[in-house]
Amino acid sequence: MNETFVVIGGDAAGMSAASKAKREDPERAVIVFEKGEWVSYAACGMPYYVKGEVDDLDDLVTVTPEAFREERDIDLRTGAEVVDIDREGQTVTVETGDETYEQSYDDLLVATGASAIEPPFDGLDLEGVFTIHDMDEADAIEDYVTERDPTTAAIVGGGYVGIEMAEALSARGADVHLYEMLPHVLQPFGEPVAEVVEDHLREQGVDLHLETAVSGFVGDERVEGVELEDDTVDADIAIVGVGVAPNADLAEAAGIERGPTGAVATDEYGRTNDENVYAAGDCAESTHVVTGEPDHVPLALTANRAGRAIGQTVTGDPTPVGDIAGTAIVKAFELGAARTGIVDEERAREAGFDPASVTISASSRAHYYPDGAELTVTLLADRESGRLLGGSVVGRDGAKRIDTVATALTADMTVTELQNADLAYAPPFSPVWDPILTAAKVLSGNLE
Amino acid sequence: MNETFVVIGGDAAGMSAASKAKREDPERAVIVFEKGEWVSYAACGMPYYVKGEVDDLDDLVTVTPEAFREERDIDLRTGAEVVDIDREGQTVTVETGDETYEQSYDDLLVATGASAIEPPFDGLDLEGVFTIHDMDEADAIEDYVTERDPTTAAIVGGGYVGIEMAEALSARGADVHLYEMLPHVLQPFGEPVAEVVEDHLREQGVDLHLETAVSGFVGDERVEGVELEDDTVDADIAIVGVGVAPNADLAEAAGIERGPTGAVATDEYGRTNDENVYAAGDCAESTHVVTGEPDHVPLALTANRAGRAIGQTVTGDPTPVGDIAGTAIVKAFELGAARTGIVDEERAREAGFDPASVTISASSRAHYYPDGAELTVTLLADRESGRLLGGSVVGRDGAKRIDTVATALTADMTVTELQNADLAYAPPFSPVWDPILTAAKVLSGNLE
Repeated sequence: MNETFVVIGGDAAGMSAASKAKREDPERAVIVFEKGEWVSYAACGMPYYVKGEVDDLDDLVTVTPEAFREERDIDLRTGAEVVDIDREGQTVTVETGDETYEQSYDDLLVATGASAIEPPFDGLDLEGVFTIHDMDEADAIEDYVTERDPTTAAIVGGGYVGIEMAEALSARGADVHLYEMLPHVLQPFGEPVAEVVEDHLREQGVDLHLETAVSGFVGDERVEGVELEDDTVDADIAIVGVGVAPNADLAEAAGIERGPTGAVATDEYGRTNDENVYAAGDCAESTHVVTGEPDHVPLALTANRAGRAIGQTVTGDPTPVGDIAGTAIVKAFELGAARTGIVDEERAREAGFDPASVTISASSRAHYYPDGAELTVTLLADRESGRLLGGSVVGRDGAKRIDTVATALTADMTVTELQNADLAYAPPFSPVWDPILTAAKVLSGNLE
Repeated sequence: MNETFVVIGGDAAGMSAASKAKREDPERAVIVFEKGEWVSYAACGMPYYVKGEVDDLDDLVTVTPEAFREERDIDLRTGAEVVDIDREGQTVTVETGDETYEQSYDDLLVATGASAIEPPFDGLDLEGVFTIHDMDEADAIEDYVTERDPTTAAIVGGGYVGIEMAEALSARGADVHLYEMLPHVLQPFGEPVAEVVEDHLREQGVDLHLETAVSGFVGDERVEGVELEDDTVDADIAIVGVGVAPNADLAEAAGIERGPTGAVATDEYGRTNDENVYAAGDCAESTHVVTGEPDHVPLALTANRAGRAIGQTVTGDPTPVGDIAGTAIVKAFELGAARTGIVDEERAREAGFDPASVTISASSRAHYYPDGAELTVTLLADRESGRLLGGSVVGRDGAKRIDTVATALTADMTVTELQNADLAYAPPFSPVWDPILTAAKVLSGNLE
């Protein structure tokens, strides 16, 4: 009999694994259980649907359920929730609306994703209060905005989702208030990025409330305001984007171990403490390329890459899922902000390094060429070894340059080696010394 | 007595070396001889001056002669040509319009640049026929275009200068004919890039004459046409951009050795066969990071970097000039085209590799996000070791991604390692799999 590969969860990690396994071994039975109706969708595109730049929610779907079934020959079952894993018997229990049944597996992938954190706020169930983590929520927000045309919007949380939704709702005509408990927005991007982004958000008319805790929402059926410690501010719509938590309960109930971050612990092949059970995507940990320690950075590329590798591994070609550098990029109105590796000295010291850092500003193009813009680049390195630890880039033009730093981290380069990288120059694209090289040059000089 | 560092040539390499040496050791006498009047200028910006995007030729000057003299305390002598090097006596002979004198040195840097190649064409001295390699030529072209408003322009040579000048003269209203002897434009960028660029040039109205040899120009005082083998085509202005040759005669006359490329041979510190004589910039060879062999790629970053390193070395801190990957990027109307390392299989085989290559096309941004454009990416790797050898990128958006490949070459990465680099994704900036990663993924699969 052919082996059976069962996948729990039909988004990036799950569908990448299923597709790759089927492509490598067409004889294998590949069954995917997805409790919802949407599969393989680009959650990161949802703010642009709300903003109005993407016409149809279906545009965010990379591959349709029909295509998975018919073209890729994957047994994809939507509306089917796995409620139990029996590792001893190698079966999962599946509930649909109509029935409950068991399915046996030879290899199992847990790709159950993450959920938006719902803080213990009053009034979280008022109409007009949303989190945004799945397609139905994006749909509901768009409907609400179209129907009610909100004058004032409250965004709770200054992470990337909060900032993207600030841009989206501002484009839809709302006055946007953004509430962040911490001293800065985009905490994982570090202060140099946060300061540039904050100035820009204010320029764009966003009312920024830093170090401001929200305690709840008020309203009669529908949200009318945001409760702060000693004030209530009007709001016709509220988006809560305070982070996500891995969906690891199902796995944990079956004795599959979580790691220090709370996500499912995995080895370099994405295997859990059970050799027939893998985990990937937003529910799983990865290994950080700089620290070598487990980390939880729930982002799309990691999920796709790990899923694909696991699909290869289960069909007999052991493939590491790859380390992560925590690389991220976000658009904030006209700005691009990006980070990779370790971006602040305190975090670097915690990881056992003796960090030095530098922040420089430079034009994204030749000084005399039109359309250049100031880029602010931060780089960190370890004093003793000279090893590059991470960095950030922010500006109106060229934030994707973070990839140079991310590649250097993957290659374990020193900052002096990075300084000598032969990057591309022509006036329409860069100054002679690319801003990344300028930062590396200055930092390398400081290490001497 | 303080040591004296003499520099021949006041552009990128020379002025970088002089500035760095003076900054590291303010007591040192630093003397720069420049035969012309312009120093430290961005030759790469000249096409944009002709095009009209840069208002003033002075905007292309990075640091003025006055600033070098007054702020950086460098003894910069313009209009002063070094006509002889006496290595035994450690002196150079200098001619100005008025006098001839000798100057002694402890360390000498030859940074004499390169010159535009003048092919043996008839009519090369007709009015309206130009090469474009220095500021005076750029000035003369701009004047001629303004004065004569040419209807038809002939560009001889489809390298980056030819293509940039095609864009510039087209913007000035001329019908542009571009003549290239070889089967493709942008030969060092490889065929996949050339084909995309050629289609685009035609779309932009450029009349492309490939595999077409020009034998000369005709006209009465002023150029009126281009002579081909069996035809004459109208031209009111002609730009000859068929490459540059290193200015190594002065050095050679003093017994300083040329390398296999014809440029001055140097070691990893930029030193020539005379331990007190260095060479850098367009007149000198560099070491190619992939082949480990000497190469001659006269580009601005290489000149700046080598000059700076030599400035450091001569003041007592030996600093390698850094290897080159031959990274280059060029704007062709709306396109960006970029290359690094070895981009074609034949060249890779010559260098002793067993190459595999792949060319893919992918969107520069998420498929549903506005303003994305198709990027064509080529990567080469060695079959046996998996080592990345080079690549190219061409498209309307995101050609600067070549830096990821260039960084990977500097780090000696395999294509599988590059495939696992944690590059930045968000819909406005990239698909989940950056096109570079997609190419690496496909190529890595082909190597198995």
